[in-house]
Amino acid sequence: LSGEFDIIARCFAPLSASSPDALALKDDVAFLASEGLAITKDLLVEGVHFRAKDPRDLVARKALRVNLSDLAGKGAKPFGYFLGCVWPMAVKEDSIESFARGLGEDQDLFKVALLGGDTTAHRENSAPLIISVTMLGRAQDRITRRNGASIGDDVYVSGTIGDAGLALLVLENALKVSAADKKALVERYQLPVPRLSLGGAILGLATASIDISDGLLADARHIASESSVAIEITAEKIPLSPAAARWLDGEKDRNAAIARLASSGDDYEIFFTASAARRRSIEMAAQVTRTPVARIGSVVKGDGVRLIDVSGALIKTPQLGYDHFKD
Amino acid sequence: LSGEFDIIARCFAPLSASSPDALALKDDVAFLASEGLAITKDLLVEGVHFRAKDPRDLVARKALRVNLSDLAGKGAKPFGYFLGCVWPMAVKEDSIESFARGLGEDQDLFKVALLGGDTTAHRENSAPLIISVTMLGRAQDRITRRNGASIGDDVYVSGTIGDAGLALLVLENALKVSAADKKALVERYQLPVPRLSLGGAILGLATASIDISDGLLADARHIASESSVAIEITAEKIPLSPAAARWLDGEKDRNAAIARLASSGDDYEIFFTASAARRRSIEMAAQVTRTPVARIGSVVKGDGVRLIDVSGALIKTPQLGYDHFKD
Repeated sequence: LSGEFDIIARCFAPLSASSPDALALKDDVAFLASEGLAITKDLLVEGVHFRAKDPRDLVARKALRVNLSDLAGKGAKPFGYFLGCVWPMAVKEDSIESFARGLGEDQDLFKVALLGGDTTAHRENSAPLIISVTMLGRAQDRITRRNGASIGDDVYVSGTIGDAGLALLVLENALKVSAADKKALVERYQLPVPRLSLGGAILGLATASIDISDGLLADARHIASESSVAIEITAEKIPLSPAAARWLDGEKDRNAAIARLASSGDDYEIFFTASAARRRSIEMAAQVTRTPVARIGSVVKGDGVRLIDVSGALIKTPQLGYDHFKD
Repeated sequence: LSGEFDIIARCFAPLSASSPDALALKDDVAFLASEGLAITKDLLVEGVHFRAKDPRDLVARKALRVNLSDLAGKGAKPFGYFLGCVWPMAVKEDSIESFARGLGEDQDLFKVALLGGDTTAHRENSAPLIISVTMLGRAQDRITRRNGASIGDDVYVSGTIGDAGLALLVLENALKVSAADKKALVERYQLPVPRLSLGGAILGLATASIDISDGLLADARHIASESSVAIEITAEKIPLSPAAARWLDGEKDRNAAIARLASSGDDYEIFFTASAARRRSIEMAAQVTRTPVARIGSVVKGDGVRLIDVSGALIKTPQLGYDHFKD
């Protein structure tokens, strides 16, 4: 079987050809220009996007947040969503109640409302919970696309990278860290914080942006490919949390370890590019939105993404991102 | 466990309270009044909404059509949709190709475009295909709600009732009919035709309407409940296809058999109410849209739905509609 992106390009992208609003399925949202609406749809599958034992209120909140993050990356302001769930037939009522409670908590935090949806069940008593969220946001006259990066632009990323990937290792007992680090990492995995303020603040400043769900390098590659440029990222400039930095200090091959952090998914930070002339404005946007933003590289001629060390030498990177049909 | 509608009312409806656009989750769509958009979301689960052996192109078309039907019932004009699929990990590429081909055929027929979505896979090689469609339609200043039926209104239904229910019996070898009748019935089950023209033509004429997915009686009950009225339907006036009429002729208890047709799902006809003063206009709407429309009852005081015989006597009806958490 071809990979997920081949299937989308070959089977589904042609179905979007008649509507410019679909952006050829090459961005994170559709943008209904005449209505000023940005719309995204992400599915979450138990066992793939969350673990069977994750508390249902946290799963609900993550389902909202990964969709909110898509809108954040585009500079749109979310206001409502549609929810579809397929529950196992024998689901306990308190699971659904917990799920709804989680939704309510995040609705209050992010000022969004449930607009509609569909509640169904598998025919099997035990089967994976499936969650489908379609999130709507207002975006006046434009959004920040993936395809605007220019040679010479600076490359930025918000927050810290790789924490959710480490959290998964910790949760699967493949990595041992201190109790405090475990708590910090797992929270990044279970409750990512969509960078909505920053996404709004860099609208009009950033030349291209994307929220990081597949991993820093994989999502940078989407920007490079849609913008027909190459992106160079300096490994040592990638911002790390204290917990990730401690983990890194214990690794023998430091470059390989950074590459691994930059290849793990679920960060939900914003990766973006902006003209070097905008450095001061980007700093201000970061400051007023109280969002840490690091300048980690630059846009250059060519294609693809290169992770380099301080001397400029190429660092070998593992497979880029997750493919639903290949992993 | 409570039933599907209890869960929605208790757990999910409160989450919609802050947005009037959600219509309190009490209609088939959300209506974004300021954008003039009607939006609906229906999930289809293999083994529940379609059969594992149904051809994938027909499944794709049905997924679009049940969502188109929701918009038809509200008088909105569809233009685009978001699609989320969860495929079994070991899906064959030609299944996805067939699915996409089906989408393409119906996109051409109904003038809608794919706007975005998400393609994912189960972790299991064989697991039920899940399809989530969010369909968008334009609806100038209003839609036909469920809650406008008034005492004294006429009650109408389009097309014919019960064919898809009989088709399921035929497909499961629980009923034998002629080859020609089988073909006609199965087409109704696999390729329902959303009544988009009629839905648009009765906007402003109908006081309430709904597309019939759960069964004539179950969906009539939604109108009765939302409108705080009772609905009386005369069994012999319910329009039947030649195939369904032939089946009925072979049944011993004619009233029970009609009740069964009116309780089976997947008709995707429009059930609606209109003032008796509008009879001529409704006839014209049916004529210009070339849609068969039958007047089958009236709106009366009280609550619930009553199926009556020609003498006015109550006909006993089976369980109303399908409950995902109870069947």
